[in-house]
Amino acid sequence: MKLLIEKINNEGIVLSSSVLKVDSFLNHQIDPQLMHEIGKEFASRFEDCGITKILTIESSGIAPAVMTGLQLNVPVVFARKRKSLTLVNNLYTASVYSFTKEETSEISVSNQYISENDKVLIMDDFLANGQAALGLVEIAEKAKANIAGIGIVIEKGFQDGGSLLREKGYRVESLTTISALENGTVSFEKNTFSKKVELTR
Amino acid sequence: MKLLIEKINNEGIVLSSSVLKVDSFLNHQIDPQLMHEIGKEFASRFEDCGITKILTIESSGIAPAVMTGLQLNVPVVFARKRKSLTLVNNLYTASVYSFTKEETSEISVSNQYISENDKVLIMDDFLANGQAALGLVEIAEKAKANIAGIGIVIEKGFQDGGSLLREKGYRVESLTTISALENGTVSFEKNTFSKKVELTR
Repeated sequence: MKLLIEKINNEGIVLSSSVLKVDSFLNHQIDPQLMHEIGKEFASRFEDCGITKILTIESSGIAPAVMTGLQLNVPVVFARKRKSLTLVNNLYTASVYSFTKEETSEISVSNQYISENDKVLIMDDFLANGQAALGLVEIAEKAKANIAGIGIVIEKGFQDGGSLLREKGYRVESLTTISALENGTVSFEKNTFSKKVELTR
Repeated sequence: MKLLIEKINNEGIVLSSSVLKVDSFLNHQIDPQLMHEIGKEFASRFEDCGITKILTIESSGIAPAVMTGLQLNVPVVFARKRKSLTLVNNLYTASVYSFTKEETSEISVSNQYISENDKVLIMDDFLANGQAALGLVEIAEKAKANIAGIGIVIEKGFQDGGSLLREKGYRVESLTTISALENGTVSFEKNTFSKKVELTR
């Protein structure tokens, strides 16, 4: 997705060979127009899949997921990273280790909002080691929901999350894939410019 | 906002005389079409105010804020509830006590994304005791930003957050105000569309 690559090139900050900071438009400040375009792009990739629900995780997955849900006209459910007092019973849960935060969270989704009748699009902002996506997959599987695919805004192709998920047979659609973060430079995989992306947008 | 009141009447669950659970469309599952309408409503109320930025707090503030940002064509910044390793320096912070979670969080916003040049619309999903909104006000004031107003999806009129903020001189726009949660029933202020909410959902 060309617009996203331009945004990463203009505003992304390479903190290390594994960390790209995109706090100006995705992870702290959010660019609603960009999220709207991201929603349209995901919707075009999954529009024929019969999606009934989008499953994401707080907090940075919410904006792209809600914009995609607006286009596909389906609800969005976000997994919580821990229990709150108003939501304690009847949860599907999974443990997720965050390499960024160096801690394990319990993520949970109420069994009221995902079921065996759902065809789920799993979404997240980043795909690195795949821990969050695998946690969402585990929750969808516990609910016996059908998983139509996994939509990712930025995939780190040099980490193994994408391979892990694809080897398990899941369709992973990443709007942009980073091949390396070396010497303060973001390198993108060529196939990021896939056939569905308008190069002149 | 009639659509929102209908949604609360149809799907809201009164857990106690102070807790209304709206997990089916706002706090856990999100209804993107409703959020889109909410965004248009907030935009119409604040369109002449010269807003340059929306300030909200993770996680449930994000969806309505991003939809409002889409309409007003301004960025959204969400305060984080604790620090992550990729965002440690140069923060504006405030302490927020949550009566629901019975704990105090440190909320923070990077000084890169809010400044004295901003005219800020503060937004949140609920206004009860006003702790979260006051924390966001504190952050905006530390940044010397101008506060145009505070946009709330659901105000609990029987708790003192709204009075506190209005007494401080802030314009508070709530899309719906609940006057009481008694006997499993949601009562609304002003143009009420109140009716019995089933306790056993």
